[in-house]
Amino acid sequence: MKTVSAKEIAEMVKAIRIIGDENVCVSGVSSLKDATNDKISFLGNKKYQDQLESTQAAIVLIAEDNSYLAKEGKTYIVCENVDVAFSRVIMIFAPEAIPYERNIHPTAAVDPTAKIGVNVHVGANAVVDAGAEIGDNTCICAGTYIGREAKVGCDTLIYPNATILDRCIVGNKVIIHSGVVIGADGFGFYPTPNGLAKIPQTGIVRIDDDVEIGANTTIDRARFGVTWIKTNVKIDDQVMVGHNVVVGESSILVAQVGIAGSATLGRGVILGGKAGINGHVTVGDGVQLAGTSNIVKDTPPGVILLGSPAESQRDFMGRIALPNKVAKLKDKIAELTERLEKLENK
Amino acid sequence: MKTVSAKEIAEMVKAIRIIGDENVCVSGVSSLKDATNDKISFLGNKKYQDQLESTQAAIVLIAEDNSYLAKEGKTYIVCENVDVAFSRVIMIFAPEAIPYERNIHPTAAVDPTAKIGVNVHVGANAVVDAGAEIGDNTCICAGTYIGREAKVGCDTLIYPNATILDRCIVGNKVIIHSGVVIGADGFGFYPTPNGLAKIPQTGIVRIDDDVEIGANTTIDRARFGVTWIKTNVKIDDQVMVGHNVVVGESSILVAQVGIAGSATLGRGVILGGKAGINGHVTVGDGVQLAGTSNIVKDTPPGVILLGSPAESQRDFMGRIALPNKVAKLKDKIAELTERLEKLENK
Amino acid sequence: MKTVSAKEIAEMVKAIRIIGDENVCVSGVSSLKDATNDKISFLGNKKYQDQLESTQAAIVLIAEDNSYLAKEGKTYIVCENVDVAFSRVIMIFAPEAIPYERNIHPTAAVDPTAKIGVNVHVGANAVVDAGAEIGDNTCICAGTYIGREAKVGCDTLIYPNATILDRCIVGNKVIIHSGVVIGADGFGFYPTPNGLAKIPQTGIVRIDDDVEIGANTTIDRARFGVTWIKTNVKIDDQVMVGHNVVVGESSILVAQVGIAGSATLGRGVILGGKAGINGHVTVGDGVQLAGTSNIVKDTPPGVILLGSPAESQRDFMGRIALPNKVAKLKDKIAELTERLEKLENK
Repeated sequence: MKTVSAKEIAEMVKAIRIIGDENVCVSGVSSLKDATNDKISFLGNKKYQDQLESTQAAIVLIAEDNSYLAKEGKTYIVCENVDVAFSRVIMIFAPEAIPYERNIHPTAAVDPTAKIGVNVHVGANAVVDAGAEIGDNTCICAGTYIGREAKVGCDTLIYPNATILDRCIVGNKVIIHSGVVIGADGFGFYPTPNGLAKIPQTGIVRIDDDVEIGANTTIDRARFGVTWIKTNVKIDDQVMVGHNVVVGESSILVAQVGIAGSATLGRGVILGGKAGINGHVTVGDGVQLAGTSNIVKDTPPGVILLGSPAESQRDFMGRIALPNKVAKLKDKIAELTERLEKLENK
Repeated sequence: MKTVSAKEIAEMVKAIRIIGDENVCVSGVSSLKDATNDKISFLGNKKYQDQLESTQAAIVLIAEDNSYLAKEGKTYIVCENVDVAFSRVIMIFAPEAIPYERNIHPTAAVDPTAKIGVNVHVGANAVVDAGAEIGDNTCICAGTYIGREAKVGCDTLIYPNATILDRCIVGNKVIIHSGVVIGADGFGFYPTPNGLAKIPQTGIVRIDDDVEIGANTTIDRARFGVTWIKTNVKIDDQVMVGHNVVVGESSILVAQVGIAGSATLGRGVILGGKAGINGHVTVGDGVQLAGTSNIVKDTPPGVILLGSPAESQRDFMGRIALPNKVAKLKDKIAELTERLEKLENK
Repeated sequence: MKTVSAKEIAEMVKAIRIIGDENVCVSGVSSLKDATNDKISFLGNKKYQDQLESTQAAIVLIAEDNSYLAKEGKTYIVCENVDVAFSRVIMIFAPEAIPYERNIHPTAAVDPTAKIGVNVHVGANAVVDAGAEIGDNTCICAGTYIGREAKVGCDTLIYPNATILDRCIVGNKVIIHSGVVIGADGFGFYPTPNGLAKIPQTGIVRIDDDVEIGANTTIDRARFGVTWIKTNVKIDDQVMVGHNVVVGESSILVAQVGIAGSATLGRGVILGGKAGINGHVTVGDGVQLAGTSNIVKDTPPGVILLGSPAESQRDFMGRIALPNKVAKLKDKIAELTERLEKLENK
């Protein structure tokens, strides 16, 4: 079992300082609540501040402005960014990741017309279809399907049982999790006397570099042109992105978000879990939308919104407080009624 | 590069008339905003009317009642249905779809007891299990699983990595997108002294002709009998249909909709994105439910509903306006209080 | 065709008593509404009480406290638990389930380092990767992927096209439906000058015995330690469970629920369809949350909550009734205004 001292850890995370015994050693990480006295933990969320008192952890990572909470006889490592530092500590003790063998598994079906880069992994029962291109150092894991004439860049990791459909384009250093579907048809129909008729979806999906896409997320191909996920966008599980949507650089879409067709999101937009964006809406740079909230109209940059339809924090809190306000008005009216009666009876 | 003249396009889409130069040529389609002067675009949504002024597009499809917006020196094609006409124009320039080879890929696992029609495609690493039947001209794409004794009709297209489970029935001219799961067990348990016990789910899913089902949608098998998706129903991505649900002809279920067990939807029902229907509820023909709204009780035909629980548009708008109403009442009460004080002080 | 008498059925379901002719025979099950006179049906939901009058069913299962509704000339079987009894009746007539052959399909890719128990099924084009362990009597169906060093217990059934990722642990008698993804990375990033950087997700998912997980549900691996689904938990389709979440014994998560990272649910918690739980929140034993509702803060045991943010039934109903209350206050204020004017004009 690996053991590491507070001093060694402080060096690895470039800590500001150590409070307590720098020679104390730990052999693993834990939450404050579950830690035993051979573990290191962290205070990353003020919510857990009370647990600093009761935790058994031998070492705790804390921020400078929480260092006044340090207790006699315990060891603390004061860090600039506790969360980032703890991520580094986790890696010290984490089981080593299992690398993918850089080969094409004998059960994989790689079409002879596909172009495969160097140092590529294609897993068991994966399919790389006709005319597809896979860049250097990319891993296409077991059971994943890469469509005809699709292009996947370099250093990209596509987990098992994902689906990238015909002609879609995936960039470099992209991570796509299991069950993701890139490039299914957008949803469009028009009424005819014989029922609903399909509007052809002739475009593609384009995923730029450094994007991550969570399990079972779906990103539909464009009616024409592209549905476009720009550089460094991070998408959680079970997100739905409609056809012709554009998501700006470094935006964050939390789980179960839905974005309807032709919506355009700026850079650095953050959508909380289960949030929704109506079709054909433009959302400005840096907009933050709370979980379960819904934007239904064009939205200027930088605003923070909640509720459905989304409104400002002030308006939302006012709406939440309405029952109390109404109860007070009712009391006030009762009082006025009484006073009025007195006057009337004079 | 293909170029086509306004005149040729007008003929192809059976346009009402051309405004401007019928000989101007274009080589592709674009949105109004992004169009360059070798492109054709369209005004399909009034929201974009302002862009008619600024667009660089050489030709724009417009409706008769927007033709007064036509500008000198530009070319317009006036159409009865702009959206449908533009879909045809898209097809002129779209890259040709890649047809599926009508063969059984050597890596596909087709059980010897399965019955395969003529002109069928079974893709790489797809599985057609024991006793399954696949109709003529149907495509079962790579990695898709067709369960034991399941029946798939003719001219149906099942995209890669979909799952059709035992004994389910899929009609003709159906399109099923990647990641769809048809026929997983419905969700039913009852409490026992030893914990929750499973209620067997012995029925199937029946999908009628001309249905389309979006990526990663799940339709559960019935507790007994059928979960039934009727003719021409169109279902978007990540929709959840519970056991024993019936969805009437030509209904539309937008992405992330959820329908709980034993609900019955009439014909031509439209459910907006993320909308929900409670279990055992009957929804009448032609009901329209706004996105993110929830129907919790039986609903007569033809109504338009919003909110959660769903109510009429009038009631919903009234509820949205409540904070303003309450603020006005507060002001009024303040005024009355003042006037009352004056009287009291007399 | 199998026919069974009321007397035989009453014995099989250990009925309290028969009302009417115990010799009448039926050949199948149906809902009250759709039943013909050779079918047996049940009154399992008071909502359908009216249909007891009109149903054509030859036999109906009813509860003792509904037995006063029995009609002359029909046969009723009075049961302690109608729902459970009807499940048994369904099984009498259900088509026999198709057992999985206990073999490894020739197209399955089982790594030579994987350990496979006795009496195991590995379906066509399934993948059991390096170092994985599969317990006795377990079925890994077609197209399913079992990750490296993952462990699956005994008597477990994993349906086609599911994905269990590296090192995750699945218990005994677990049922995992198609499209499920266990162990994709949790969602965590931190801002850097060069964009969002990934927080490593080094933990696993642990699924205890007797759990069932619905189609296309995703359960993310922990940042460190485990995301933990405890014994007898039942999860419906398209549920999202974030990293480091703990779900207590015998809890029920209905379709499209989302649970954000590090939330902890007690025993016997019930979350209705589309409900949500915020990150880092603790939900007490036996909490019941209505569909589409959201818990945003720590919640004591045993409470019943609705709405978003979740509140008590009383508060929720009060909020729903607000438009009526406000309308009444407006009327009252109008009345007071009139009376006040009268006084002022004196």
